[in-house]
Amino acid sequence: MKFMKLYLLLLLILAAAISSFAQAAAPTPPLYSEKTLAELKRLQQAAVASDYAYREVGYLANNIGPRLSGSAQAQRAVEYVADEMRKLGLEVRLQPCMVPHWVRGAEHAEIIEWDGMAPGTTQKVVLTALGGSVATPETGLIAEVIVVNTFDELTALGRDRVAGKIVLFDNKFDSEMAASGFGLAAYGQAVQYRFGGAMAAARLGAVAALVRSAGGSQNRLAHTGTMGYTDGATKIPGAAVSYEDAETIAHLAKNGKVRIKLTLTPQTLPDAPSFNVIADLKGSEKPDEIIIISGHLDSWDLGQGAIDDGAGVAVAMSVPAMLKQVGLKPKRTIRFIAWMNEENGGRGSAAYAEAEKANITNHFAAIEADLGASHPLGFFFAGKKEALPFFAPISNILGAQGAGQSQLQDGVGSDVGPLTQKGVPSFAPWFNQQTYFNYHHTAADTFDKISPQEIAENSSVMAVLAYGLANLEQPIPR
Amino acid sequence: MKFMKLYLLLLLILAAAISSFAQAAAPTPPLYSEKTLAELKRLQQAAVASDYAYREVGYLANNIGPRLSGSAQAQRAVEYVADEMRKLGLEVRLQPCMVPHWVRGAEHAEIIEWDGMAPGTTQKVVLTALGGSVATPETGLIAEVIVVNTFDELTALGRDRVAGKIVLFDNKFDSEMAASGFGLAAYGQAVQYRFGGAMAAARLGAVAALVRSAGGSQNRLAHTGTMGYTDGATKIPGAAVSYEDAETIAHLAKNGKVRIKLTLTPQTLPDAPSFNVIADLKGSEKPDEIIIISGHLDSWDLGQGAIDDGAGVAVAMSVPAMLKQVGLKPKRTIRFIAWMNEENGGRGSAAYAEAEKANITNHFAAIEADLGASHPLGFFFAGKKEALPFFAPISNILGAQGAGQSQLQDGVGSDVGPLTQKGVPSFAPWFNQQTYFNYHHTAADTFDKISPQEIAENSSVMAVLAYGLANLEQPIPR
Repeated sequence: MKFMKLYLLLLLILAAAISSFAQAAAPTPPLYSEKTLAELKRLQQAAVASDYAYREVGYLANNIGPRLSGSAQAQRAVEYVADEMRKLGLEVRLQPCMVPHWVRGAEHAEIIEWDGMAPGTTQKVVLTALGGSVATPETGLIAEVIVVNTFDELTALGRDRVAGKIVLFDNKFDSEMAASGFGLAAYGQAVQYRFGGAMAAARLGAVAALVRSAGGSQNRLAHTGTMGYTDGATKIPGAAVSYEDAETIAHLAKNGKVRIKLTLTPQTLPDAPSFNVIADLKGSEKPDEIIIISGHLDSWDLGQGAIDDGAGVAVAMSVPAMLKQVGLKPKRTIRFIAWMNEENGGRGSAAYAEAEKANITNHFAAIEADLGASHPLGFFFAGKKEALPFFAPISNILGAQGAGQSQLQDGVGSDVGPLTQKGVPSFAPWFNQQTYFNYHHTAADTFDKISPQEIAENSSVMAVLAYGLANLEQPIPR
Repeated sequence: MKFMKLYLLLLLILAAAISSFAQAAAPTPPLYSEKTLAELKRLQQAAVASDYAYREVGYLANNIGPRLSGSAQAQRAVEYVADEMRKLGLEVRLQPCMVPHWVRGAEHAEIIEWDGMAPGTTQKVVLTALGGSVATPETGLIAEVIVVNTFDELTALGRDRVAGKIVLFDNKFDSEMAASGFGLAAYGQAVQYRFGGAMAAARLGAVAALVRSAGGSQNRLAHTGTMGYTDGATKIPGAAVSYEDAETIAHLAKNGKVRIKLTLTPQTLPDAPSFNVIADLKGSEKPDEIIIISGHLDSWDLGQGAIDDGAGVAVAMSVPAMLKQVGLKPKRTIRFIAWMNEENGGRGSAAYAEAEKANITNHFAAIEADLGASHPLGFFFAGKKEALPFFAPISNILGAQGAGQSQLQDGVGSDVGPLTQKGVPSFAPWFNQQTYFNYHHTAADTFDKISPQEIAENSSVMAVLAYGLANLEQPIPR
């Protein structure tokens, strides 16, 4: 009981701090007209009751399916989203970019020697090739496994112990940290081994690198994602094993020699043409000033790309749909962007940043949703601290759905990152990230992980934010 | 708050009912000597602190691996467990039985036609062949999918609509029921489609039967298990699709034609010789009276057979180990049995029941653990209601670890089932079954799902129960 009271007290203090921070030193004259405020309320109410985003992510996930850059499904998604935006009356263009075209092949592995094995048997290892990985020989490679927890442990072993081996980086994803709402931080810790493992292992002569999955799943799911190679150095295959398989290999390796047969046959094809989908809802008063609403259209190939990031695209798509439904026209231009190639290259956002480099000051704000579609607490903001009070009226309106909080961050997403760095005020829905990394980049990133109510709450956050910014009566300090 | 009070009140009433039920009309004279009661206390304390069962399930799961009947691993497990029991000084024999020998082959499926498909693409379907299934042609079969929720819906469609199709039985596992602690009841509802789906579909001319996985996983895991065929009728292949894939197929089938390519190449080989492992710890006073302690040694092949049922075997193995550690000799004989072929035939328990049919009355009691190794609340009992008070002193001792409850059931497990039916008082640890069916029969039934503390609690329940029964001063009403 004592702990409960303390906990409640801390919550109250925290809420007060956030609230006072956001509302202190509110600028005058009024930031939003009475008319705009009334419109925002109607927009909020319409968006939280809408199934538009839910239906759109359903189509992207179920009817189109996974959308890895360069794939036929990615191209189909470009065309579909462009059509949907045209239907809403937006000015649509496809912005070209060349994207990496990596194609998964066969992927399987077996433990073929271990302490206690029954003669003639093997044990299956559940794994998945990391994005960009080179292949093993088509008939597989066989080597002893050496297990390390960190880069330092690997270095300490030295070339004599590592050369010719398969290295397993057995760093555990911090599930407790994720369950506490800091999934992205836990992911940040784990992902360095996924990205850098093969480079470090290759330097010491290893023949392949395995990494424990950089996610919270304990359901025999392997977690893909990009890996890196050092230019000019030997490239060795890289794959992620499931939580369970990392546990088994590490357990068996403690008591004896463990040998694995590893077969991965991905291919890196020549870069392929692809596109960002850009659709403008022109502003009635300041058409040259732009508020970006966005998610990324490409996804990994194992699941359906529902939470990552069909949801973000669908939420962004819903903003013009909601404005049309409620009958609102923004004063500034609201620009929808479905980014291409966030997952393995960032070529779409680079193309946009390059094309708009002389036009950055006209970018009034940028919003990106790329952390799923759980219940939003409010929004993250990357920009000047002094700007936060400008958004307090928006938070007040979002408070009706429990999304009234805001928090400063250094960055809010990788696709708007180039704009954020150049001073464009940037926003993202604020999620708690408690379950996101249980499914992210796995075969279980599927439509059923989306709640109809929660994705509607996200539509509302993005719509209210976008329309509020489009009709803000003052410039944002930047 | 009101609900909380009501909930607490209900709990108290329930606890009082269980307790009064168990302790009413306690028989005299004393059921257990003071010496026995003191020994049981020492046994309980030693068992909850032991890592014996945890290490044994680790060896079965990691070092031996999955143990499907007829496999080399199942044979290796027979030899290993027999050796472990010999090390403890028990009289070991292997009881022969011929077991089905079904071997999983390739298994994959793709949706090849659906509304919205990108030209030239397919969508992967995660599935697994059901135990005993016949194969498709080696190059797969292609057919339209028809989705039904129940047998009645299938019947209503009739032969015209079903012939030549693949039927998907889309009955949902009741995850809410399972999360409330009634996993076995939820499983019982769902499993009828897994077992009977192919028979029902074949009667109407279908070419294959798919079934939504009969478990609680929402992590793209398919759930295997036995299926049935009608003697003399056409046999069609049967497979379980993951939760997610059932959702996708059902969603797409609502809006258009869905065609699937299905490839399953399992083989049914001739029955193979195998064994129950039987190990006796002879009783000092009534060696002919037997208390069975048991779990089943075979498992499905997708995971490691850790919760199903390496845990049960390891817990049973721990009973003689704990008795030896504490220095106790039972008055009646304690008989360890690692059953063979519980999963797909029950040949081991049938062989035992046949061999002992003239000796049933000498079976004083039988204990089986086959529902995982979560925190035990006490034990289930199948037998005469009047017998329950005889076990109250045992429950009192197990109360020290929160396992003081007991409950009447019609049956407690399939391997001791033939004995239960002939009147042998039968017991099983009482689990809440909240998470068991999230992993059961899937690739995620692995060692990491076992808690060291919880499996020790199970060892204690079985050890205290077994030694208490072995030293009970009176016969149990039967």
